[in-house]
Amino acid sequence: MTKNIKHIGLFTSGGDAPGMNAALYAVVKAASAKGIKVSGIRKGFEGLIDNDFVELKTKQLQKTMHLGGTVLKTARSERFRTVEGREVALQNIHDNHIDGLIAIGGDGTFRGISLLSEISDIPCIGIPGTIDNDTVGTDFTLGFDSAVNTAMNCIDNIRDTAESHNRMFVIEVMGRDSGYIGVYSGLTSGADSILIPESPQDMTYLLDKIHGYESEDAFIVVLSEGNELSIDRVSQQIRQVNDAIDLRVCKLGHIQRGGNPTAADRILGIRLGVAAVNALIQGESNKMAGICNNQPVLTPFSEIAKQHAIDAEQQSLVDLFCR
Amino acid sequence: MTKNIKHIGLFTSGGDAPGMNAALYAVVKAASAKGIKVSGIRKGFEGLIDNDFVELKTKQLQKTMHLGGTVLKTARSERFRTVEGREVALQNIHDNHIDGLIAIGGDGTFRGISLLSEISDIPCIGIPGTIDNDTVGTDFTLGFDSAVNTAMNCIDNIRDTAESHNRMFVIEVMGRDSGYIGVYSGLTSGADSILIPESPQDMTYLLDKIHGYESEDAFIVVLSEGNELSIDRVSQQIRQVNDAIDLRVCKLGHIQRGGNPTAADRILGIRLGVAAVNALIQGESNKMAGICNNQPVLTPFSEIAKQHAIDAEQQSLVDLFCR
Amino acid sequence: MTKNIKHIGLFTSGGDAPGMNAALYAVVKAASAKGIKVSGIRKGFEGLIDNDFVELKTKQLQKTMHLGGTVLKTARSERFRTVEGREVALQNIHDNHIDGLIAIGGDGTFRGISLLSEISDIPCIGIPGTIDNDTVGTDFTLGFDSAVNTAMNCIDNIRDTAESHNRMFVIEVMGRDSGYIGVYSGLTSGADSILIPESPQDMTYLLDKIHGYESEDAFIVVLSEGNELSIDRVSQQIRQVNDAIDLRVCKLGHIQRGGNPTAADRILGIRLGVAAVNALIQGESNKMAGICNNQPVLTPFSEIAKQHAIDAEQQSLVDLFCR
Amino acid sequence: MTKNIKHIGLFTSGGDAPGMNAALYAVVKAASAKGIKVSGIRKGFEGLIDNDFVELKTKQLQKTMHLGGTVLKTARSERFRTVEGREVALQNIHDNHIDGLIAIGGDGTFRGISLLSEISDIPCIGIPGTIDNDTVGTDFTLGFDSAVNTAMNCIDNIRDTAESHNRMFVIEVMGRDSGYIGVYSGLTSGADSILIPESPQDMTYLLDKIHGYESEDAFIVVLSEGNELSIDRVSQQIRQVNDAIDLRVCKLGHIQRGGNPTAADRILGIRLGVAAVNALIQGESNKMAGICNNQPVLTPFSEIAKQHAIDAEQQSLVDLFCR
Repeated sequence: MTKNIKHIGLFTSGGDAPGMNAALYAVVKAASAKGIKVSGIRKGFEGLIDNDFVELKTKQLQKTMHLGGTVLKTARSERFRTVEGREVALQNIHDNHIDGLIAIGGDGTFRGISLLSEISDIPCIGIPGTIDNDTVGTDFTLGFDSAVNTAMNCIDNIRDTAESHNRMFVIEVMGRDSGYIGVYSGLTSGADSILIPESPQDMTYLLDKIHGYESEDAFIVVLSEGNELSIDRVSQQIRQVNDAIDLRVCKLGHIQRGGNPTAADRILGIRLGVAAVNALIQGESNKMAGICNNQPVLTPFSEIAKQHAIDAEQQSLVDLFCR
Repeated sequence: MTKNIKHIGLFTSGGDAPGMNAALYAVVKAASAKGIKVSGIRKGFEGLIDNDFVELKTKQLQKTMHLGGTVLKTARSERFRTVEGREVALQNIHDNHIDGLIAIGGDGTFRGISLLSEISDIPCIGIPGTIDNDTVGTDFTLGFDSAVNTAMNCIDNIRDTAESHNRMFVIEVMGRDSGYIGVYSGLTSGADSILIPESPQDMTYLLDKIHGYESEDAFIVVLSEGNELSIDRVSQQIRQVNDAIDLRVCKLGHIQRGGNPTAADRILGIRLGVAAVNALIQGESNKMAGICNNQPVLTPFSEIAKQHAIDAEQQSLVDLFCR
Repeated sequence: MTKNIKHIGLFTSGGDAPGMNAALYAVVKAASAKGIKVSGIRKGFEGLIDNDFVELKTKQLQKTMHLGGTVLKTARSERFRTVEGREVALQNIHDNHIDGLIAIGGDGTFRGISLLSEISDIPCIGIPGTIDNDTVGTDFTLGFDSAVNTAMNCIDNIRDTAESHNRMFVIEVMGRDSGYIGVYSGLTSGADSILIPESPQDMTYLLDKIHGYESEDAFIVVLSEGNELSIDRVSQQIRQVNDAIDLRVCKLGHIQRGGNPTAADRILGIRLGVAAVNALIQGESNKMAGICNNQPVLTPFSEIAKQHAIDAEQQSLVDLFCR
Repeated sequence: MTKNIKHIGLFTSGGDAPGMNAALYAVVKAASAKGIKVSGIRKGFEGLIDNDFVELKTKQLQKTMHLGGTVLKTARSERFRTVEGREVALQNIHDNHIDGLIAIGGDGTFRGISLLSEISDIPCIGIPGTIDNDTVGTDFTLGFDSAVNTAMNCIDNIRDTAESHNRMFVIEVMGRDSGYIGVYSGLTSGADSILIPESPQDMTYLLDKIHGYESEDAFIVVLSEGNELSIDRVSQQIRQVNDAIDLRVCKLGHIQRGGNPTAADRILGIRLGVAAVNALIQGESNKMAGICNNQPVLTPFSEIAKQHAIDAEQQSLVDLFCR
């Protein structure tokens, strides 16, 4: 059932992720090809409530599509959690003659939109934008590939020092509760051990491996932030098992979240932006656009669980390379 | 039917591609986990003929897996095209007690191996290593993602100048007969036009678009090298249609072939390296390991055609964004 | 003699160079600390004639200081070469109540300003912005360090392929008539030969070196674009001397001109921007701000010759490393 | 007084720094041009004691000159602090027929060499290799420019998130007791505040600036690690003054120490490597080679103080841009 969409409201919400600007460009480009106007809403749900709408032009977004962050800015909104906040937001949507919404963000964003759909029939499509790759309904989330490359390049840098000094490094990467960034940045940087929340037994393998260890080489441990053991506890346990090891720690932190998006994230942003516009036109609502096995797919918000288990093949690679 | 492989011969052949070193590391790591020894053969088929075999150690390859090029070196071999050359190669394989071969390269490499299989029953598995992404049997070839990112980052650089001067640039990217690098680097860098061998009509769209064009902005044309029209002819035709345009050209050239591989290419190298070892163990031969729709697959060499048509979704994106 | 400057006109002219945006930020920041207003003039002399003046805000420029190109855009102006053009420009300067000019560009830009000073007493200070490092009065021009790093990184990439194939590469870098980019990018990338306009005898050394050469390694020749011999002629002569060499060529082209400026270029832009504002306040005019031996210096436009001979120490390094 | 040097011993010591491999290449290249043999000593003073000498070949070092870290490895040596350790080292130097030493490291390295000179007349020249730029006798130490660029690029990344969320970030950079990396990375990334050990009053300026601050923008504080206040204390004080600020912290850590050296560090390594060889030939000893105001200079080890005050011009820029 095709729907006659004339004016889309577009916003980014939750943590920023590289590739969001490419998705913004794609939404506006795809919409304008169909004669659909697009307004940007600044700072996510905050802007919906504050009526902070801006006109979006293709030419301008084409020039910023390669930049990190989001030109529409993003925020977390306490007010949108209230009934009053959502009613004001809905009124602004109506007053601006918006007849379709596209939101880029994580599962929290999609829950927010779902609340809106309870009091309205405005069609809404989501685009998964988060570096954590913790969303079902898509093989990769927007920003993940960039974050992995940033983390990997940082670990490559640290390897220079680790090899020069024959040192061990424990390096904490992001991912919230998900080990995806850990697995990918660890495998691709040739880590000796990867510690992720999904596989707590790897700590035991690590401690076994370093028992009596005397290295003439670098030894790299990649630790995902959501791990049960903090970076300090991991270091402490390593030192308890082998106090001869020259050990250093490093938390990569927020640098993983920024920087110009990689090609994969830009193409993903483009594909998801176009898919979201097409979904609205086809009368879809309350669904997230994703790419599974190379094909665009839509998944209802109600099925978007936070958990996104590490793929079995990836896990087997960790077992093979890092135990 | 599982086969008892004890000693693998491993080589890279044809043009080098980023990610080859990650694949080398993965083959040796996966093999050694099964108690299989791996010898490297330097310079591809040349080394087979010259008996240029070297011992490969996991620790050493772990340290070079993040580097571009191939530590085993590569070459094209005229001698292997002769019966005599292949017989010497086969003798060396036997003399070194090799009972399985893994070759990383393009379709020419696989044809070479096929010739070997005509006179021998040594099992051989191929890994598609080429930046051109012109091989069927895998969604992406090893090196493609790195080449695309390099080309894209170069175009980002050129955009700075194009915007500062309101200039048009025609930028030639690699790909031999395939437009894949053109499509991906063009879409991800926000190109205004993409000219690929597979879609010659886009030149007409471009010339229509610039007729009477007076820009206050950059205008980027990405041209794939395999195109019917050379970069000089494209420029000439643009000038004929609109001689007021401030036009510059740039051939990116060999920089697209080198540099440290991206995370996607390293993970692809790892997956394909492991898949190749597993294939040999499982008794497979004369097949190429690839990843299609996120799953490892094997494709017989006999079905590896050179042509790898641009995916329909990608083509529709080019139509939407660059016409 | 201090002068009471209230309103500076600021523009970029000639070819863009990385670091120009940092200099723009610095001028506005330094001026506003002294209570001086700054207006930007878009597209260099063209904007002076077209009265294309824009207000510049510190906060906005702070956000773009890390980007390549110039947010004020740049252009070459035919009209400014005419008496009429310059009279219109001067009128616009007066009408906008500009009482001091700062221009970022190369020697052509400074000649343009000098023409203005012939018909006016508006004080003008220049900042040397060009990747070519071909200006006297400063050890390094704005953009040079970025261009060298870009060229060097490209040559590092090409080295991956050169080593994988034991190939020779002739790589052309920019620099117009100056060999500076050639010398710096060649030395820093470990080139085997550097061919610059200032040292034509190096071609002879190269041809001697490759006579009978049979390499098991990469061989890198860096060629400056201003050289007497074109890249095609150089290749031809190499092949004549030794036709067994596997030779490839690559022209790096415009990618050297763009990209985010390096730290050295940003700090240079900041220092020169501040120095230019201080110079205007101190009543200076028709001078270029530069950094010589780590100290800010002013040089009269009349002494700015195009030629900037290769430093003797650098030349001796080329002799030592590349002959 | 020229000295007839025939065999140089070369090592890296202390923390590794990008550019060390370029300096190693330069020493061997410059020495071999004079017919001097060079042996590498692995792991600094440890290798001197353990007689861990390796032959160094120009071709091999040419291929690694662009890599971070040090191929000779480095270490801190407790044993060299003992008389016995130094006597063994000296014996190994004699046994290997070394008649000149070149050491790359920081002030601790030079103190170590000075101890050796107390019991021997073997001539020794030092090259300042440390990212901290905390050595007198040279304007910049080897590795500083690379570390600054790495830190700056990281802050650029973080700025994407800071602007997307209108957040404040406190970012800790390296430098031990020196604020140089803080000043350079802060100025070049457009920081709003820079807190360095040398200028404790800047904390007061910062707290004044954010009193009542309500931003619609990023706010970046760069903190040098040697600061009196830790990153946690700085954050705490910011929150006390203004608890409405959305504040995040990030310690860049060891990534600043690795990675391929920049062009400036490679050229510096080359210049210092050549200067060190020349100094030995000229009969110099117990001196450090440095570059001051663009000229190679030698400074006696006895004058190498740790402290290297921030240049007055740089400090004035911090005052202007970051208060």
